[in-house]
Amino acid sequence: MRVIEAVRWSPAGDAVRIIDQTLLPERYEERELRTLDELCDAIARLAVRGAPAIGVAGAIGLVVSLQPFAADPPAALRARLKEHADRIRATRPTAVNLPWAMSRMLARAACVDGDQRALLDALRREATEILEEDRAMCRRIGEFGLPLLPDGARVLTHCNAGALATGGIGTALAPIYLATESGRYIEVLVDETRPLLQGSRLTAWELSRAGVPVRVIADNMAASLMRAGRVDLCMVGADRIAANGDVANKIGTYGLAVLARHHGIPFYVAAPSSTFDAALEGGHQIEIEQRARDEIARGFGRVTVPDGVPVESPAFDVTPAELVTAIVSDRGVHRAPYDFSGLGAR
Amino acid sequence: MRVIEAVRWSPAGDAVRIIDQTLLPERYEERELRTLDELCDAIARLAVRGAPAIGVAGAIGLVVSLQPFAADPPAALRARLKEHADRIRATRPTAVNLPWAMSRMLARAACVDGDQRALLDALRREATEILEEDRAMCRRIGEFGLPLLPDGARVLTHCNAGALATGGIGTALAPIYLATESGRYIEVLVDETRPLLQGSRLTAWELSRAGVPVRVIADNMAASLMRAGRVDLCMVGADRIAANGDVANKIGTYGLAVLARHHGIPFYVAAPSSTFDAALEGGHQIEIEQRARDEIARGFGRVTVPDGVPVESPAFDVTPAELVTAIVSDRGVHRAPYDFSGLGAR
Repeated sequence: MRVIEAVRWSPAGDAVRIIDQTLLPERYEERELRTLDELCDAIARLAVRGAPAIGVAGAIGLVVSLQPFAADPPAALRARLKEHADRIRATRPTAVNLPWAMSRMLARAACVDGDQRALLDALRREATEILEEDRAMCRRIGEFGLPLLPDGARVLTHCNAGALATGGIGTALAPIYLATESGRYIEVLVDETRPLLQGSRLTAWELSRAGVPVRVIADNMAASLMRAGRVDLCMVGADRIAANGDVANKIGTYGLAVLARHHGIPFYVAAPSSTFDAALEGGHQIEIEQRARDEIARGFGRVTVPDGVPVESPAFDVTPAELVTAIVSDRGVHRAPYDFSGLGAR
Repeated sequence: MRVIEAVRWSPAGDAVRIIDQTLLPERYEERELRTLDELCDAIARLAVRGAPAIGVAGAIGLVVSLQPFAADPPAALRARLKEHADRIRATRPTAVNLPWAMSRMLARAACVDGDQRALLDALRREATEILEEDRAMCRRIGEFGLPLLPDGARVLTHCNAGALATGGIGTALAPIYLATESGRYIEVLVDETRPLLQGSRLTAWELSRAGVPVRVIADNMAASLMRAGRVDLCMVGADRIAANGDVANKIGTYGLAVLARHHGIPFYVAAPSSTFDAALEGGHQIEIEQRARDEIARGFGRVTVPDGVPVESPAFDVTPAELVTAIVSDRGVHRAPYDFSGLGAR
């Protein structure tokens, strides 16, 4: 089985190589990003997306964007490093991984005493470490989640918490990839995930490309399939997890969790340990971002809502801990009563 | 308040006048259908849709399509009547109202002894009766449902069970129109209703045109709004109701009913008495039609599911009676234990 790689070094080490996700599933195209403008543009227009993936892309991109300035005086190069990191960080200010990756790169630079070459080499190693850690994080989530997926399991997922969102094999999809690799037969049902269709466009694409049987449904069909006994378990990602185990994730997750409970179906959340936020007591403290009207009203390039009619479009929702069967992280499988001490963004 | 009329006689009485629903919400255009071809084409391509509405359109259309043959010998005219009725009935074979309306028109013709003029006059009166009965049916549903909608009620609905689907003011939307007309402030939330978006395209359009405050959400957002206390009750239509109170309706209805139960929100179904099917013991006997892959995979002219990935697309689902708070029909408000005797297609 070969899982796609959403973000990595170009073979020559002179660019970030990404899969352009704006073209999926119609066209598969890889792009090499070399300049600061190319990188920021790709992140801003979601050509590369997913919190872990943009952290990795930002780190590698920072290094390659500095290559043309390798002969600048050390002070000028360091000033440029700071300037590039600031611009990358500002590209998508709400995602936690981008500022985190930039802080880490700057901290590493602060520890380097040598010349320009030594500085750039150190940054290159740090970016590679960020990528490798992300890959290892995904794999550990996959390994911890593996026992939850028996042979023949039919898994319902939502949105895209897969390889396309990380530097590795994904978060919620990681156990599915590893179970398939180990010879178990796993079938996936994925909600299309309105308004932006990350489920039907992205999750369906990466799973089918890896040979994992996948089938797309409209979001409003999940209940009916659960009632028909067609879903054995749910496995979704998370954007943020509060200290009490409440989970913020893509809109629609909470409804699925209620439906799973009603039908007696286990509901699992898989997320990197960096997603745990000890400063949040519970989900009620999470502010819910509203998305632009046109994502619903003009989402497919057609007028799908009459002019003048308002829409309501929360970007994510909060699933209370009591509806979650277990949380799978790169540190283990967590069950209530939760103790997340030691977890959280590094 | 002025509610739109989806289907009616043209002012000159020589055509069926419909609102072309394929153009909504981008363009509002009325069409006059005169020939058999125009009528069948409009029904087939869903320019007029909704079981009650196509029954009415079929009946009026049958009369106007016979006008050019008014001077034919009586036997030839009757043969043509039969031929036209057969073709109209076959246009959408699954909808119950179209065959029902055609049978009723033919039965009326069978009772007429006079010349061509007498025959056509009788058919014209019968078609008008079908339209008037449909209007009265809608209004009675509205009146029976009225006490369920207190001033200030925030109602969640799904799909389109409104004026656009009937000859009158709709079924699920009828109580909303009458409550608004009587001076109560009613706010509606409507699911966009994938895959065909009847909620965002049609329900939002007709409510906003009548001045009823309406707001569109993606199907996967309902749970979140219920949890936030933003929904006081649900009101949906029905395609078929079994003897035990199980309700078949547009896909997504069952999930909403589960969510409503979880949040302690009343879940009402509104439907004409003709929707009750005494021959059906329970919902398990209802066969669920699968819709074409492209409604999900190419619904808006874009590739939204990768080629080769299958979709699952049931057209409707079954809500078990125990999740339904009450059923509103043109005969009253029905609550468990149900006794539907005397109801059913006439």
